[in-house]
Amino acid sequence: MSKQKIGVIGMAVMGRNLAWNIESRGHAVSIYNRTKSRTDEVMEESKGKKLVPTDSLEAFVDSLEKPRRILLMVQAGKGTDAVIEELRPLLDKGDIVIDGGNTYYKDTVRRGEELAKDGLHFIGTGVSGGEEGALKGPSIMPGGPRDAYDLVAPILTEIAAKAPDGEPCVTYIGPGGAGHYVKMVHNGIEYGDMQLIAESYAVLKHVVGLSNEELADVYDEWNKGELDSFLIEITARIFRRKDEKTGKMLVDVILDRAAQKGTGKWTSQSALDLGVPLTLITESVFARVLSSMKDERVEASKHLKGPEAGKFSGDRKAFIEAVRKALYMSKLISYAQGFAQLRAASEENQWDLHYGDIAKIFRAGCIIRARFLQKIMDAYKTDPKLKNLLLDPYFRDIVQGYQGALREVVAEAVRIGVPVPGFSAAIAYYDSYRADVLPANLIQAQRDFFGAHTFERVDEKGSFHAEWAQG
Amino acid sequence: MSKQKIGVIGMAVMGRNLAWNIESRGHAVSIYNRTKSRTDEVMEESKGKKLVPTDSLEAFVDSLEKPRRILLMVQAGKGTDAVIEELRPLLDKGDIVIDGGNTYYKDTVRRGEELAKDGLHFIGTGVSGGEEGALKGPSIMPGGPRDAYDLVAPILTEIAAKAPDGEPCVTYIGPGGAGHYVKMVHNGIEYGDMQLIAESYAVLKHVVGLSNEELADVYDEWNKGELDSFLIEITARIFRRKDEKTGKMLVDVILDRAAQKGTGKWTSQSALDLGVPLTLITESVFARVLSSMKDERVEASKHLKGPEAGKFSGDRKAFIEAVRKALYMSKLISYAQGFAQLRAASEENQWDLHYGDIAKIFRAGCIIRARFLQKIMDAYKTDPKLKNLLLDPYFRDIVQGYQGALREVVAEAVRIGVPVPGFSAAIAYYDSYRADVLPANLIQAQRDFFGAHTFERVDEKGSFHAEWAQG
Repeated sequence: MSKQKIGVIGMAVMGRNLAWNIESRGHAVSIYNRTKSRTDEVMEESKGKKLVPTDSLEAFVDSLEKPRRILLMVQAGKGTDAVIEELRPLLDKGDIVIDGGNTYYKDTVRRGEELAKDGLHFIGTGVSGGEEGALKGPSIMPGGPRDAYDLVAPILTEIAAKAPDGEPCVTYIGPGGAGHYVKMVHNGIEYGDMQLIAESYAVLKHVVGLSNEELADVYDEWNKGELDSFLIEITARIFRRKDEKTGKMLVDVILDRAAQKGTGKWTSQSALDLGVPLTLITESVFARVLSSMKDERVEASKHLKGPEAGKFSGDRKAFIEAVRKALYMSKLISYAQGFAQLRAASEENQWDLHYGDIAKIFRAGCIIRARFLQKIMDAYKTDPKLKNLLLDPYFRDIVQGYQGALREVVAEAVRIGVPVPGFSAAIAYYDSYRADVLPANLIQAQRDFFGAHTFERVDEKGSFHAEWAQG
Repeated sequence: MSKQKIGVIGMAVMGRNLAWNIESRGHAVSIYNRTKSRTDEVMEESKGKKLVPTDSLEAFVDSLEKPRRILLMVQAGKGTDAVIEELRPLLDKGDIVIDGGNTYYKDTVRRGEELAKDGLHFIGTGVSGGEEGALKGPSIMPGGPRDAYDLVAPILTEIAAKAPDGEPCVTYIGPGGAGHYVKMVHNGIEYGDMQLIAESYAVLKHVVGLSNEELADVYDEWNKGELDSFLIEITARIFRRKDEKTGKMLVDVILDRAAQKGTGKWTSQSALDLGVPLTLITESVFARVLSSMKDERVEASKHLKGPEAGKFSGDRKAFIEAVRKALYMSKLISYAQGFAQLRAASEENQWDLHYGDIAKIFRAGCIIRARFLQKIMDAYKTDPKLKNLLLDPYFRDIVQGYQGALREVVAEAVRIGVPVPGFSAAIAYYDSYRADVLPANLIQAQRDFFGAHTFERVDEKGSFHAEWAQG
């Protein structure tokens, strides 16, 4: 019996679609699922496709060419540990296990070190693009030993999304947990993008008073310009979608309680550990939490009044354009924060990340795909050691030019009572980052006053302490 | 030889001052320090005081009455583990070890469980008040087994700060890590308070143009009203303090790079884990990080221009009053967030925290001591199960009445380019919390569009999915 080059464990939608994607490039694929009935179901759905079902891990392992290439698409966490434990004694030195789940990067480091003891290679890879991306071409972020990556690179390259210029959206990210870390930050950035779009929606709806149809037109229009992206595109489509049950617009019958799966939270927690000011994504994570407190909000809305502000009285068209600029500037700031975090993580973990290549593979396949990622590529091409994207000429010109719009939108939303935590975080970050002097001298004075924590001086190096009580 | 009721290990300033505090209440105190020379130094400084020096842990343990009461004031983390490991075999069943350091609460849980195996009691206690508080009376937040607490309660009560009504600032917080958790959140709240004061300073300085002397007068004035607190008091004093070296005002020669020791970061990370929107304290932690990036900011300030905004043209006196209201409202929101976190942590860990008692012991001794803590006590007295402080009548009236001021200050600061991340987070939280509808319906639509994550409906229970691609 001929053996397969690669096999996939875990036949939930993502695993099945990746198997189909691989198969569509001309490779027979072994598949295995813990529950046999699911394997049967998938085989039923896969008529005419070269999928090879196996009914035990032994049979699965035995069906693969050596070195074996095994893609795990199982539940992150304990599910992954359980499969690896069962798999490990069946494998031979040099075999490669690829974890394509949304795994916490420190788990990937641990598993890689563990499997390396048996001479097994472990690759932790981010896979973004949802179900459709998995099937037609996701953005792939593999991390782990370089030589093992090289053995799976041809297949990953075949199945990856292709950017508009034809480049495949996969690149070697770095050793250890680098791939899953980059995927985590990708997801954090996705939280930020979605929150900012939601705020633009709230402002356009509640300040300007746009209808769903007008909103659809606005986002369609925006999608033709520098905001061109998958998320803006689907936003326009969402506003045109009718609910079959009620005949209302679907967006209006969807409950305003946003869920989350933890990657945004991890991104913020890591930023706090690294000492990177990831304010916008963190506000986005908290905004989802606030949205999920629906009952408490409904109750609070009965007791806590908003402002007695007059309605918006400015030029509607001009204000809509200001919202567009506010959204784009805030998005740039969010990416500047996210990429600053990648830089700090790369230094902390000695990953030697290539930020331009990361932006490059985000250009297609994944949820945050957008025309503007080309600008990030360009920025790092010009200066691979760029400290912060805001210092790149393109970014600098945009934020300097659009700041007036962002300030106007924040001020108007705050005046009228529409919450804009993401936009507010963006302008606060901009004004803090460009401030040669911040009021933290007072904080240091206070800390020295009550805790003798000492302070630095502007005119002399060293640590100083004042006897404040005697002052 | 007579034995002592209590001993202190660790003779750095906090440990020494707590030993002196205990001694001043009429108790002889055994002391021990790893480096003997420091013990000698302390004995030299302690002439006339009933401190009993010991030069080994054996001698220290032997000098104490049973059950022994041992207060550890050593470096949090490995330092604490090392001392406990050495101490453990020397102790007898029923002895009580009290850790008074800024320990991560999960470490306290672990140590308590470990020591319980030997029948030893472990109390993890927050101690706030800095050097002076340690000496004259700190706020004390002990957590651990209730029966062990009762054995040390008399001494802790004697050494604690006394609130204006004479009540000692110590209470049993709860089992396990509850004491250190409450201290952690106390410190997070302290970060928020300090950031908000720093923002009020920046706005008064850069928008209104107040001098240090005028600032001192403003904070002195504010300290006579509802903002009355230790931090406002010392802020006024800081603005009056001259630098001996240069003759300038000291605050102006202090470098604007704020340091931190990690408790604020832990508070935010725990909020993310618990799913509590702790936006203001988290922005305060990130603001310290941004302040610490001094060189990068100075460089960025050369390239990133601010707004071309005209100067402030309103009524100075009225605006200063608006800043006062903005500060007080933001402070209330920060505490509402912090106490909501305590509530979530109490439920998660089954600590049965008494929020009113916690506010009560914050009223004196600790850094965040303030007149307004009485209002929190009152709120929980009226409704011990209050979900959010903003729903209490006093809080509700303030935030509803002061929101116009906060909106005005945020809008003006954003217009002029003074970063106000804390004020902005406050108003965004207020407007989100009181919103019966948030734009998260769009986020759920997007998630269902690209990831089939499903959504809830406003008109029907259950999980729904739309075939968006066909829309």
